[in-house]
Amino acid sequence: MSQFATMDALREVCANLPSGDDDAAERARARQNVLTKPQGSLGRLEDLAVWLARWQGRAIPSLEAIEVIVFASSHGIVRRGVSAFPPEVTAQMVANFASGGAAINQLAQAAGASLKVVPLEVDRPTADFTEEPAMTEAEFLDAVSAGYASLSPSAQLVCVGEMGIGNTTTAAAVAAALFGGTGADWVGRGTGVDDAGLARKAEVVDAAIALHGEALKDPLEVLRRVGGRELAAIFGAVLAARHNATAVLLDGFVSTAAAAPMAKLCKGGLAHAQASHLSAEAGHARLLENLSLEPLLQLQMRLGEASGACLAVNILRAASACHEGMASFADAGVSQN
Amino acid sequence: MSQFATMDALREVCANLPSGDDDAAERARARQNVLTKPQGSLGRLEDLAVWLARWQGRAIPSLEAIEVIVFASSHGIVRRGVSAFPPEVTAQMVANFASGGAAINQLAQAAGASLKVVPLEVDRPTADFTEEPAMTEAEFLDAVSAGYASLSPSAQLVCVGEMGIGNTTTAAAVAAALFGGTGADWVGRGTGVDDAGLARKAEVVDAAIALHGEALKDPLEVLRRVGGRELAAIFGAVLAARHNATAVLLDGFVSTAAAAPMAKLCKGGLAHAQASHLSAEAGHARLLENLSLEPLLQLQMRLGEASGACLAVNILRAASACHEGMASFADAGVSQN
Repeated sequence: MSQFATMDALREVCANLPSGDDDAAERARARQNVLTKPQGSLGRLEDLAVWLARWQGRAIPSLEAIEVIVFASSHGIVRRGVSAFPPEVTAQMVANFASGGAAINQLAQAAGASLKVVPLEVDRPTADFTEEPAMTEAEFLDAVSAGYASLSPSAQLVCVGEMGIGNTTTAAAVAAALFGGTGADWVGRGTGVDDAGLARKAEVVDAAIALHGEALKDPLEVLRRVGGRELAAIFGAVLAARHNATAVLLDGFVSTAAAAPMAKLCKGGLAHAQASHLSAEAGHARLLENLSLEPLLQLQMRLGEASGACLAVNILRAASACHEGMASFADAGVSQN
Repeated sequence: MSQFATMDALREVCANLPSGDDDAAERARARQNVLTKPQGSLGRLEDLAVWLARWQGRAIPSLEAIEVIVFASSHGIVRRGVSAFPPEVTAQMVANFASGGAAINQLAQAAGASLKVVPLEVDRPTADFTEEPAMTEAEFLDAVSAGYASLSPSAQLVCVGEMGIGNTTTAAAVAAALFGGTGADWVGRGTGVDDAGLARKAEVVDAAIALHGEALKDPLEVLRRVGGRELAAIFGAVLAARHNATAVLLDGFVSTAAAAPMAKLCKGGLAHAQASHLSAEAGHARLLENLSLEPLLQLQMRLGEASGACLAVNILRAASACHEGMASFADAGVSQN
């Protein structure tokens, strides 16, 4: 049975988000200010420690239980020639995840995180959203619910990622629907399309925006009509994290687009999430700007799979290790300025 | 006995640098191009794997033995009021390193690296370089030799860092001497000086450049006359790394300035080093630009101690893990574009 039986049930959970633990955040900030370093000299690491404290609800955050969840699904719009790779690659890559041969297997292990792969009806693509909604309400709610249920209650940090041939076009459609602009403003080369492919991607996005029109004023309808199952599931997982005191690392363009409706549905809806990196996919910078998210890394990556999020885990670990392990000026007998 | 008995002996070792293993680099690149990801989609991680292969001289690099070396020393120019902290903090922080309470202790541990702290006559500051050379030739060669000797022959990657109240002024003097510009172009707030302190730092640099004049055309003389012991030691360690097939992660402004003479003495002299991060210290961006180094991270850090370099270790680990562990398209049965 699905977590969310109706759109209204989902809408209600999105509208009532916990606001984070002010007290834990204040105590974490006070601690940062007496550690043996010039105040502020650890830069974003200091803010990240305080941010983790707020969203985990503990002045000394913990990163013992880190989960990487990769959602995979198939997209009706691939028939429009929007990808450099054939659609069967999605299923082949799910098999590659299972046998440990993909980038994310190595990166999750290097980050000391557990990896969960959640295929979402990979052999049943969504509808072509230039012709009709990508998903029925039931299909959409199933995907959101699957994402919501995928998060372990014990997770202290979750990295959300995806695999789905065609899904940078889907993400571009979601971004255009949420933040305006044309297809050309949001599409990029994805896994490596040529100029003609890039033009087709922009056309597909423009056609989708034109078809669904006013219905796209509702952020949940955006995700249902021009999204995809893995995007809906990421949305569900990010929502679950907020209700579970789990901090979130978003991955690249697709993951960020998937989570973006949270920010539209509720002020501060993505405050418990960090943008792990700025991807090389063209629309990502604009998307992060619209969400006022500052990426932690910028390494010209554009793979998806939660690869960027996994890299950023190490930055959070470093922030947390300094926060927990450093001596204070008083304890270490170091003179202050 | 010192590694380098004379300036000429040191000069000769600097002029004859190994050029890296082209064959290992080519084999690494060929491997990258068949792994199960769109070519180039791991961005800088792909280049880093190839870079490690070149400088370690093996197509599949290894990061089993990572060394963090922090050099500490004291600076005669602190009497000019160039730091927000009193000079005794250098020795106090060396004690803090020894008892495990500093940021670098936590960061080295989080990066799975061993930490070595090398104090260099901390109770005997260099001379005030606005009046005379910071070090005699013998003192300078001792410091370079100490740095050279500090690198373990088994190290596959070394992170070089420093601690020394006053040393952002020293680094600014070195940068100005090597690359031109006035003191104001290179100084920053260091551990947190106010506007008056910042003006004093610029004056100190300008006075040093004026005093030492033509002698600063020689990069080694720059390091001896307006440098410091920990900078000379970093130079020595970076030089040793090149001769030992050890890749280098530079830390922030001070470490980069310390290594910069290598690039002046020999074309490609810093090719075996990566800039781990862009520090918040004002002159660092200009310095990296002059060296054509692209930082891996940009987190507004400005602590030194090798803290930024330690964070970047995780990026290299990720690059290396993908390079070694990923399946090829053929092995995984994934269709190519």
